Amino acid sequence: VWIGDDAAVVAAPQHGSLLLAADAIVEGVHFDLDLVDVADVGWKAIAVNVSDIAAMGGRPLHALVTVVGASGSMIEGLVRGLAEASAAYECAVVGGDLSAGPCLVVSVSIIGTAAMHRAIQRGHALPGDHLFVTGPLGRSSAGLRALRAEARGAGAAPPELAAAYRRPLARLAEGSAASSSGATAMIDVSDGLGIDLDRLATASGVGVVLDSVPVAEGATPDDALGGGEDYELVFAAPDAGAVREAFAAAGLRAPVHIGTCVSDPETRRLGNAVLEASGWEHRLV
Amino acid sequence: VWIGDDAAVVAAPQHGSLLLAADAIVEGVHFDLDLVDVADVGWKAIAVNVSDIAAMGGRPLHALVTVVGASGSMIEGLVRGLAEASAAYECAVVGGDLSAGPCLVVSVSIIGTAAMHRAIQRGHALPGDHLFVTGPLGRSSAGLRALRAEARGAGAAPPELAAAYRRPLARLAEGSAASSSGATAMIDVSDGLGIDLDRLATASGVGVVLDSVPVAEGATPDDALGGGEDYELVFAAPDAGAVREAFAAAGLRAPVHIGTCVSDPETRRLGNAVLEASGWEHRLV
Repeated sequence: VWIGDDAAVVAAPQHGSLLLAADAIVEGVHFDLDLVDVADVGWKAIAVNVSDIAAMGGRPLHALVTVVGASGSMIEGLVRGLAEASAAYECAVVGGDLSAGPCLVVSVSIIGTAAMHRAIQRGHALPGDHLFVTGPLGRSSAGLRALRAEARGAGAAPPELAAAYRRPLARLAEGSAASSSGATAMIDVSDGLGIDLDRLATASGVGVVLDSVPVAEGATPDDALGGGEDYELVFAAPDAGAVREAFAAAGLRAPVHIGTCVSDPETRRLGNAVLEASGWEHRLV
Repeated sequence: VWIGDDAAVVAAPQHGSLLLAADAIVEGVHFDLDLVDVADVGWKAIAVNVSDIAAMGGRPLHALVTVVGASGSMIEGLVRGLAEASAAYECAVVGGDLSAGPCLVVSVSIIGTAAMHRAIQRGHALPGDHLFVTGPLGRSSAGLRALRAEARGAGAAPPELAAAYRRPLARLAEGSAASSSGATAMIDVSDGLGIDLDRLATASGVGVVLDSVPVAEGATPDDALGGGEDYELVFAAPDAGAVREAFAAAGLRAPVHIGTCVSDPETRRLGNAVLEASGWEHRLV
């Protein structure tokens, strides 16, 4: 997987900007090896960073991976998960580093590009924009709960929920469709819809009024609003018809219309209730 | 320091390749907070990665930083050290991530470029090439020893040695001069001259015969050969005169001629002795 030199040498993209994202995932903070396989950790470390690139409407090109605290037998599984995600997202792991350490830490940096379309940041939503989410929410949170119950001796976690937690998907095609349909702002749901939408609204200086939130099968409304780690994309766009057309043209499931942006920057509403900026920064602590 | 979005958006270099490097430094493995300040950790995390870019004859453009396990009071010092190195090497920290964790881990990825000159890899040295090192070796290792003695109650470590250990310098200008003078292979001395030169020779399929190794003031020959963390550059080049001219033209100290590459790929010689592939992967364990 690694290129054995001081640095990897890769071609610079001919057009467009570079997108740079980095996230570390930490044993006991972001994952628990009693609930996930070490290969899942490798997958997730890549997928959550690719999701950040997706949330800009970009595509990933290269990954750098530093691994701390992987024992000999863990490295093989970890590399397998990294390689699976690298293949799935066409994002070559071109370099990295392996160190001793007291717990497993996998830090990934992704170099991507926003070629063709511009990069969609989170701070340019406008009052009147429609808000969409690319899929129902809460499955990952429900999956974690089911896996914890399974570890305590309850029945096996439903495979779909377990997979949502263990092998989250980055919505690259959806991010690209949102971008081409005129999205003004976009973010991935990593920490929870409430908190991530609050970030988008705050950065944009708009308020948000939601009329509904799609709850995944097997999940609760609380999972959907505050569970996080679903890695669906939330975006604002002025032309709802253009959004639906772009997703249909790309062969994608239609995104779910959840509400609109309003001019009062303080407004956070879900139906008649206040939309709380709920969610976890770190789900296991 | 951070750009508050899913990913940072930066301009792609107009010419040349991208250079990508990543290294993590880990408390208790690569540093001991009894011997260094947390700001030194921030500096070093950037400098060791910039050194990898220097060893390709490139220059750094952007850095991504993930920090695990920094408590509130540590973060300020860490950010100060990161910012100082970022300014010194003109390498903007454009993104990253902060997580809880059981010990301090700072992982840095650098995006650089090899514009103008080609990237100098480690595997293209040829028999007959001259071997140079950009400065005397062993100061960092001697500095660590002096800091440990100081911590046990001996006299204060000599400031120059302590600084060599705490604030290593990346040799960007030297790497660039080596590149422009026709260097065929280059590596930075991170783990020790013996082991790093063995890597260059093995990757190139050549042997190496050294006639001398420059030992820094205050260091021992063992420090110079196996101490590591000096971050001087070792390179092979066919034309010794062109090398001296390029360094002089850039206003740099002349690099030290230490030997030559030979055709027998098994040869590792220092004077009449065997040059051992000595050095530490992790200096504190």
